[in-house]
Amino acid sequence: MSTVNYPSRLLEDAVNEFAKLPGIGRKTALRLVLHILRQPADQVEHFSSSLVKLRSEIKMCKSCYNISDTETCPICSDNKRDTSLICVVENIRDVMSIESTGQFRGKYHVLGGIISPMDGISPSDLTIEQLEARIAAGSVSEVIFALSATAEGDTTNFYLYKRLSRYSITISTLARGVAIGDELEYADSLTLGRSIINRIPFNG
Amino acid sequence: MSTVNYPSRLLEDAVNEFAKLPGIGRKTALRLVLHILRQPADQVEHFSSSLVKLRSEIKMCKSCYNISDTETCPICSDNKRDTSLICVVENIRDVMSIESTGQFRGKYHVLGGIISPMDGISPSDLTIEQLEARIAAGSVSEVIFALSATAEGDTTNFYLYKRLSRYSITISTLARGVAIGDELEYADSLTLGRSIINRIPFNG
Repeated sequence: MSTVNYPSRLLEDAVNEFAKLPGIGRKTALRLVLHILRQPADQVEHFSSSLVKLRSEIKMCKSCYNISDTETCPICSDNKRDTSLICVVENIRDVMSIESTGQFRGKYHVLGGIISPMDGISPSDLTIEQLEARIAAGSVSEVIFALSATAEGDTTNFYLYKRLSRYSITISTLARGVAIGDELEYADSLTLGRSIINRIPFNG
Repeated sequence: MSTVNYPSRLLEDAVNEFAKLPGIGRKTALRLVLHILRQPADQVEHFSSSLVKLRSEIKMCKSCYNISDTETCPICSDNKRDTSLICVVENIRDVMSIESTGQFRGKYHVLGGIISPMDGISPSDLTIEQLEARIAAGSVSEVIFALSATAEGDTTNFYLYKRLSRYSITISTLARGVAIGDELEYADSLTLGRSIINRIPFNG
């Protein structure tokens, strides 16, 4: 179906819109649109309005830059959480991943990306200045870098470290090592090597 | 992310809507929604309205049951096409596939599915009665069954054949055989066997 004749302009419009989404080709778009065509009209209207409302009403938390329905996100407003501990992440998906572990009770800071000269993303495109302002305000004692274990993640970690090391705070990063449940023979050698170097005391 | 805490109800709503689409899981839905969130507002509104318009304004061609912007689809309205030849297909995707070959100049009839007792689809759920009415009207000389080469396709072919054989028309079906460009050693044995039985004269 390289040159496709759509029997309807309305159909073609909807397929074009879906095909703009990342990872959705024209064949998948057509399949999704034909599925939508079979749904009740009120269901389609609900789908449609949820997107417009999302785009027009959603806010960015003015403290951590997580997305939110309110000026300050539920995590930043939660006074049972530790304000002295900030976990720096790339995007809101990472906030959700860490939240789902139930192991972190501090606050977050969403950078909105990662330093990547290849993609034209420089430190000024990220919320690094705002992160520094939060630390300069004084109540933060530890910052955890929770960025991807990639070259860009390492670059960003290094840049942040240089910039934040003049404050008297602890700077830490996620432990790297063999994943829980992994068999050693299937662990990649880089990870395995690092987890030997960074071995930890065994507590019975 | 089995139990996910969304930072925003608006976000969660939109993710839920996307996750209702076939083949879209919650992780993919989140990725799509975050992409939409980064688009300009007018682009999101255009996406949204294209779906509502599709659902509310699209029609089914009253002759062939292809979807259409008008009462009669462009193919049925085209008087340069052969009215005596009807190609019976399962759905509108098949119409588009056959149209893209440029090899068919007759009309179509879209069944709207295929007989499948497993999925609870019986002949009365399809537009078989309407197909018979078109043939009974008298101007049709040949009907081509262009259904899937599956058990359900064979069942439907057989049912249609029994029902239409009392009319003085030619009934044909798509040629089955080794696909063009395929190497013989990779053709499945069923297809290869059939293409030996149904071998055709070689015209230098």
